[in-house]
Amino acid sequence: MPNKEDILTGWFARQSKAPKSRFPIGIGDDMAQVRLAADGTVLITTDMLLDGTHFDLSTATMEQAGVKAMNCSLSDCAAMATIPVCAVAAVAMPKGFGAARLKQLHKGIVRAGRKFDCHLIGGDITAWHDPGSRFAVNVTMLSIPAPGIDPLRRNGAKPGDAICVTGTLGGSLRQKHLTFTPRVREALAIASAAKIHAMMDITDGLSTDLNRICRQSGVGAILDVQRIPLSKDAKRTADPLASALHDGEDFELLFTLHPRQYGRLENLGGIPVTRIGIITECKSLVFRGIDGRIRPLQPKGYDHL
Amino acid sequence: MPNKEDILTGWFARQSKAPKSRFPIGIGDDMAQVRLAADGTVLITTDMLLDGTHFDLSTATMEQAGVKAMNCSLSDCAAMATIPVCAVAAVAMPKGFGAARLKQLHKGIVRAGRKFDCHLIGGDITAWHDPGSRFAVNVTMLSIPAPGIDPLRRNGAKPGDAICVTGTLGGSLRQKHLTFTPRVREALAIASAAKIHAMMDITDGLSTDLNRICRQSGVGAILDVQRIPLSKDAKRTADPLASALHDGEDFELLFTLHPRQYGRLENLGGIPVTRIGIITECKSLVFRGIDGRIRPLQPKGYDHL
Repeated sequence: MPNKEDILTGWFARQSKAPKSRFPIGIGDDMAQVRLAADGTVLITTDMLLDGTHFDLSTATMEQAGVKAMNCSLSDCAAMATIPVCAVAAVAMPKGFGAARLKQLHKGIVRAGRKFDCHLIGGDITAWHDPGSRFAVNVTMLSIPAPGIDPLRRNGAKPGDAICVTGTLGGSLRQKHLTFTPRVREALAIASAAKIHAMMDITDGLSTDLNRICRQSGVGAILDVQRIPLSKDAKRTADPLASALHDGEDFELLFTLHPRQYGRLENLGGIPVTRIGIITECKSLVFRGIDGRIRPLQPKGYDHL
Repeated sequence: MPNKEDILTGWFARQSKAPKSRFPIGIGDDMAQVRLAADGTVLITTDMLLDGTHFDLSTATMEQAGVKAMNCSLSDCAAMATIPVCAVAAVAMPKGFGAARLKQLHKGIVRAGRKFDCHLIGGDITAWHDPGSRFAVNVTMLSIPAPGIDPLRRNGAKPGDAICVTGTLGGSLRQKHLTFTPRVREALAIASAAKIHAMMDITDGLSTDLNRICRQSGVGAILDVQRIPLSKDAKRTADPLASALHDGEDFELLFTLHPRQYGRLENLGGIPVTRIGIITECKSLVFRGIDGRIRPLQPKGYDHL
């Protein structure tokens, strides 16, 4: 079952009349691609982050909000194995918010961008009239393809592919979602070393995001739950496996490649890659439990709708 | 006096370390410009629109909100005399908002874009957890320079320039802000016909926006108030001139050019252009009243801070 957000996103994608020649990648991937009149191609992603949903300004600082806002878009650049170029940011401020807090936000945005030579080049400042409304920040980022690497999409997974993730999964909301480093360099290294068929970043939980790759590629998957790398914070929860399968905001890479290509990822300067399953022709999403039995895997990740 | 938003925007611009060679136009103009690795150049603008601030969903439809969200960004493309290419949209929904209303928003976005061959190619859907928060939509748009026309900036006004506006001013909040057609074609026609020194669209009121051109260009201006074209809706207010000078959201073009170039604008197929003043070397903003006396003009337009 796709979640409601995916159903709606699919509907939007089907309405699109954007010509494929100018817009090779449209609605429904981590970024959209634009071919300009000249040789150039540019990719674009937009991310809205809300106080109370994506961070909580009663505990997080404005600088952390700025870092996270940039990092979410940088993670989209990573998800396509592209090179971040620049960003614009728009904010919606509660009444009486003031410039000082926007400067802290700016500090976070600039700090997160600097790590990847990604510049803030414009923005928009607006304020709620309504006293009840909270802070929102929207970052839109442009990236370009790395030389010799086509942007990696969600729709290229093939039966027999190994399913891999970077890092460890689950429990991100405890801290990691505010402190993670987007996998931009890792994505470029992985895409340079091996032929990747499909890639995305895990933002709404492994089960939901793997389901997206499967649906867009017209395939299924078997996850081997014993192989899923559990984060320290997942291990602290009552059900670490459920946390790793369904928690959102891991911001790790999820990708598939021919199993013979997997060996090429073993000496990538310490990038932690784990093989967690296999892509199947049958379109269902299942997992192999600790008892060895195969059961259906429900995508229980985050649904914004 | 610059308004608080301008002071803060100026501060952000001064922090920027974006290299001019790759980012010829940065923070503080209608759009930012990116030179890509190849020959291509692309411009980007982002606009956040809030329920209760930019439209009121108790009276406006979601489709109107979508139209306005696109039109604000299209108007930025016009402000630089560039050609719109595509847009991404991000939304923040109140709890329980539902997909049907997003489809209406989408309809408005697509309808407004279609007039200028500007495609929606991506987006982001998020929801407030907090019950008190209202709907927001952010549109980010890309444009490209028209052949032979450099993007028109705010900082090029020269002493002696004629100051011109398209259309009529004031009272936009009565209706026009939801129904206007962005001056994309007019901007291209004007920039093709004459050498324009500075251009922007009037979003925060003539007095505030002319002040922006003056400050960024290091010049002043004398407005001839008798020449300011008053809209029908401005004429219905108690003070039509104040309405035309200070009301926000006109979405008309404000530009300057050498007075000898002005004649070239007279036969542009019915594009209504009015000459309303002159750029001066002295850095103050003043107006010539009906009595012929010169008085200081306070920028009293909209300030988001």
